[in-house]
Amino acid sequence: MSEELGITVPKKNFGEWYLEVVKKAGLADQRYPVKGFPVYMPWAMFMIKRITRMFEEEFERTGHEPAGFPVVIPESSLKKEKEHVKSFEKEVFWITHAGKNKLEERLFLRPTSETAIYPMYSLWIRTYQDLPLKLYQSGQVYRYETKMTKPLIRGREFFWLESHTVQKTAEAAQKQVEEDMRITENVIENKLGIPFMLFERPPWDKFPGAESTYAYDTIMPDGKIAQIATTHNLGRNFSKPFNITFTDEKEEKQYAYQTCFGPGVSRILSAVVSIHGDDKGLILPPELAPVQVVIIPILKKGHENKVKEKAHSLFSELRKSFRVRLDERSYRPGFKYHEWELKGVPVRVEIGPDDVAKGQVTIVRRDSGKKLAVSEKDVKKKISDILKDIFDSMKNRAKAFFDENVREAKNYKELKQNLKRGGLVKISFCYEEACAKKLKNDTGAEVRGIEFGANEKPVNKCVICGKPAKKVVYVARAY
Amino acid sequence: MSEELGITVPKKNFGEWYLEVVKKAGLADQRYPVKGFPVYMPWAMFMIKRITRMFEEEFERTGHEPAGFPVVIPESSLKKEKEHVKSFEKEVFWITHAGKNKLEERLFLRPTSETAIYPMYSLWIRTYQDLPLKLYQSGQVYRYETKMTKPLIRGREFFWLESHTVQKTAEAAQKQVEEDMRITENVIENKLGIPFMLFERPPWDKFPGAESTYAYDTIMPDGKIAQIATTHNLGRNFSKPFNITFTDEKEEKQYAYQTCFGPGVSRILSAVVSIHGDDKGLILPPELAPVQVVIIPILKKGHENKVKEKAHSLFSELRKSFRVRLDERSYRPGFKYHEWELKGVPVRVEIGPDDVAKGQVTIVRRDSGKKLAVSEKDVKKKISDILKDIFDSMKNRAKAFFDENVREAKNYKELKQNLKRGGLVKISFCYEEACAKKLKNDTGAEVRGIEFGANEKPVNKCVICGKPAKKVVYVARAY
Repeated sequence: MSEELGITVPKKNFGEWYLEVVKKAGLADQRYPVKGFPVYMPWAMFMIKRITRMFEEEFERTGHEPAGFPVVIPESSLKKEKEHVKSFEKEVFWITHAGKNKLEERLFLRPTSETAIYPMYSLWIRTYQDLPLKLYQSGQVYRYETKMTKPLIRGREFFWLESHTVQKTAEAAQKQVEEDMRITENVIENKLGIPFMLFERPPWDKFPGAESTYAYDTIMPDGKIAQIATTHNLGRNFSKPFNITFTDEKEEKQYAYQTCFGPGVSRILSAVVSIHGDDKGLILPPELAPVQVVIIPILKKGHENKVKEKAHSLFSELRKSFRVRLDERSYRPGFKYHEWELKGVPVRVEIGPDDVAKGQVTIVRRDSGKKLAVSEKDVKKKISDILKDIFDSMKNRAKAFFDENVREAKNYKELKQNLKRGGLVKISFCYEEACAKKLKNDTGAEVRGIEFGANEKPVNKCVICGKPAKKVVYVARAY
Repeated sequence: MSEELGITVPKKNFGEWYLEVVKKAGLADQRYPVKGFPVYMPWAMFMIKRITRMFEEEFERTGHEPAGFPVVIPESSLKKEKEHVKSFEKEVFWITHAGKNKLEERLFLRPTSETAIYPMYSLWIRTYQDLPLKLYQSGQVYRYETKMTKPLIRGREFFWLESHTVQKTAEAAQKQVEEDMRITENVIENKLGIPFMLFERPPWDKFPGAESTYAYDTIMPDGKIAQIATTHNLGRNFSKPFNITFTDEKEEKQYAYQTCFGPGVSRILSAVVSIHGDDKGLILPPELAPVQVVIIPILKKGHENKVKEKAHSLFSELRKSFRVRLDERSYRPGFKYHEWELKGVPVRVEIGPDDVAKGQVTIVRRDSGKKLAVSEKDVKKKISDILKDIFDSMKNRAKAFFDENVREAKNYKELKQNLKRGGLVKISFCYEEACAKKLKNDTGAEVRGIEFGANEKPVNKCVICGKPAKKVVYVARAY
C-alpha cells in the first residue's frame, strides 16, 4: 500500500488521526473556498442520509409528521424571545440583498428553527383537539461558529433533524422528553452502537429560552465529550411571546407547552467514525455502511475465468440481501484490502483459485481481522451471522470504553486527576454557577448536568467549594 | 360538509382551483412572513420526500453517488463563467454579514450548484480512470424570483435534485442525456402517471453557459406548459474556466465534458396536483400517496363494538401491505369521506354494521367514485388490484389529455387559433430568435424546442415569417 493511501497516525493521537481518516476514507474535503463549509463526499453523504432516515422512521413510528419550513427567517421573528435573540444574533448569517436590491428587512439563515416555526404554530393551533402537534424537519442549519471548525464535529453548516411538539400540559411535554430518549436509543445505540448518557444541563447551560435542556453526551477517544443530540423542554417560554394558545376542554384559552429535539446527524457520524475506528481507519456498523460486503477476486494466471465467474455469481447472489461491491479494478489485492479496510467495510470476501477448487470462499472481518473459510453454499447465512456479531462486538467494545471512562471523585484533587484521564467524572456539587466557573478556569472542564431519571442524592459536600452539595452531577471536558 | 372544508371552485377555473386545493388539502401555507417562501405542510412534505427518494433510487441504480456541497458560494466562483454570472447575479440572495461582522467576500445562496461543485471537480479529477464521475445532491435551491410566486409552481425556495457528471468524450456526455431521460420516465411517467415531452431548447433559451439544454415539459390543465426537469449538456464550457482536466490514455491533458440534470421536485408535485386532481380535490397516485387506504367505521347505536373491532383488525392486517389510516375521529362519516377525497387518498374502506353482518366491507375508489362490496377474505388482494387499476386509469387519462393538447399548425392563423386552445402546437420554423420574439409579442407563446430524438424534417415554410424552415418545433404558452 502506498503511504498516500494508508493511515499513518495511530488512533491514540486522536486529533491528527481523525483529520487523516476524514480525508483518506473520503468523508469530507476541507478545500471548499468558504471557511467552515467542507464538502461531504459520497462515503459520508450516504451515511448522513442513512442516519437521517433512521431518525425519520422513528419519528414516523411515534406519530411525528414531516414539514418544510423556510431556511430564511426575518430579523423581527428572532427578536420575539429575549434569551434566544441574545444568543443567536451573534452567530447567524445575514442576507441583506437579493439580486441588486437591498431587502427591506434583513433575513438570517436558520441556526435552529424555533423562530421560523412558532409564528405558524400560532396560526394553526386553535383548540385542544389540535394537540399534541408533532412535526419534524430534516436538513441543514447554519451557525457562524467562531471556534475552530472540524469536519462533522463543528461546522458552519451541519446536518440534523429537529422536531417541535406542542402539548396541552407540562406533564405531556415532560413525557415527550422520554419519547425523544427512546428514539435516540433506538438509533444511536441499537443501530450505530454508540453509548451515551442523557443529562439535564445546569440552568446556566440551557438552550436560550428553554425551561430545561436535556443533552445526549458520548465520550470521544481522547476522553473529551461530544454532545450529539438535545431535547429542550420549552415550557411556555416560547408560547407566550409567539402567542401559541388553544381553547381547552372548558372553553378556556391556555398557552401551550412545547418541546423541541435535535439529533445532530453530523455529530453522530463523527462519533461513529471516532469511537469505532482503529489504526487502520474506519470500522462501520453494518446497518450504516455504504458497502457491507466487498468481494475481491484474486486472479492468478490461467485461473482468471473461473475466479471471475465465481465472483460474479456470488455478487449477484449476495446483493439480494446486502449492500455489496465487487472490486474488479486492476490494482493488486493487497492494495484493495487496505483501501476497503480504511473505508471500514465490515466484511471482505476473497475468492482465489484455491477457493474455487475447494468450493469455498475466504471471509475476513474488519473488526477483528479474523479470516475463515466458508463453504459456498453457507456464505449468505454466514455473512448475515457475522454482520450481527460484528455489530454486537462493536457495540460492546464501545460500551466498555464508555463505562471505563465514567469515574467518581470524592474531593477536588481526585476530580482533577480523573479529569486528566478524560471521560465523565461524577461528583457531589453545590449547583452554583460560580463554582462551575471556577472548575472551568481551573481545569477546562464543564458541568454536564444531572443524569436524567437517576435521582441520586449527594453523599459529600460540594467537591469543588466544600459548601453543602445539592446535586450529583457529571463533569468533563467537551468539544 | 362545511363550506370551509370543501373545494368551492371547479377545476376548469384552474388558477383559483389550484390555490384552493393547495390550501384546503393541507399542502402549503403562504402566510409565512417572507414573500415567496411558503411553509410546506405534512401532506406535501411527505410527497416531496417520496419523489426525492424515487429519484435517488434511480440515481443509485445508474451509478450516481450522493454528495453534500455547501449552500453558500463565494461571489468569485460565480464570476468564472460569463454567461452564467450574467443570468444568475440578478436572482441570488446575498449574504454580507455573519454575526456582527461584515464578510470579506460576499456569499450567495445556491440557485443551482455548478459554481459550488466545479472548483472541487477541478481538484478531484486527475486521469481518465476517474471518469465518468457522477454525483448527485438532493435539497433546496434559492432564486429571487420577481415573477408572481405560487406554491410548488414558482417559489424562491424550491426542492429539487441535481446531478453533475464529468465525461471523457462528447459522445459519453450526450449518452448521459439519454440516461437522464430514462430516469425521468421511470419516476414521472411510471410512478406518478405524468406524461411529458422532452425538447431541445432553442439556443436563445438555453441554460446560461450550456452547450444545449433539454427540457421536460408537461401540459397543465389550463393548457399552459410547466417545465418539470432539465438536462444540460455543458460541453466544455465549464471545464475550461473551472479547469477540469484529465490525463487521457495517451498521457495527454484534456478538458472534460460535462452534463447536469435537475428534476424539480416542487414542480413535479405541482403537476401531480394539477393534472390528476378533480373538482373534489386531489387524486394521488398510489405510490406517492401519504395514505393509500383510509378505513372509516360507520357507527350505529348498539353496533359500535362489532364495527370498531372489525375496523381495528382490518387496520392491523392492511397496514402490513399498505399505508393505511384508521379514522376514528368523532366527526360524522360524510364529513370524513369528503375530507379524504379532498386529500386524494386512492381507496376508502367503509365498515358499517351491515358489512359486519355480511362478512364484507365496502370499497370506494377515489378516481371514479365507484363502490363495491368485497368479502373480508379478499380485501387485501382486491385493494392491491384496485390500486394498480387506479394508477393505470390515472396515467391513461393524463396521457389522453396530453395527447389531445398537442396540435399542428400549417400557418400563422392556425397557430394562433391553436395556441388559444392551449397545449403544444407543432410548426415548421426558421429557427431564428427574431421570429421567436415576434411570436412571443403576438401571442405570449414561446418556442419550446425540437422534440428530442424525433429528427423531423419541416414540410412547410416557417409558419411565422414565411422564410425557409429549418426545424420542426413545438410552441406553447408556459409557466
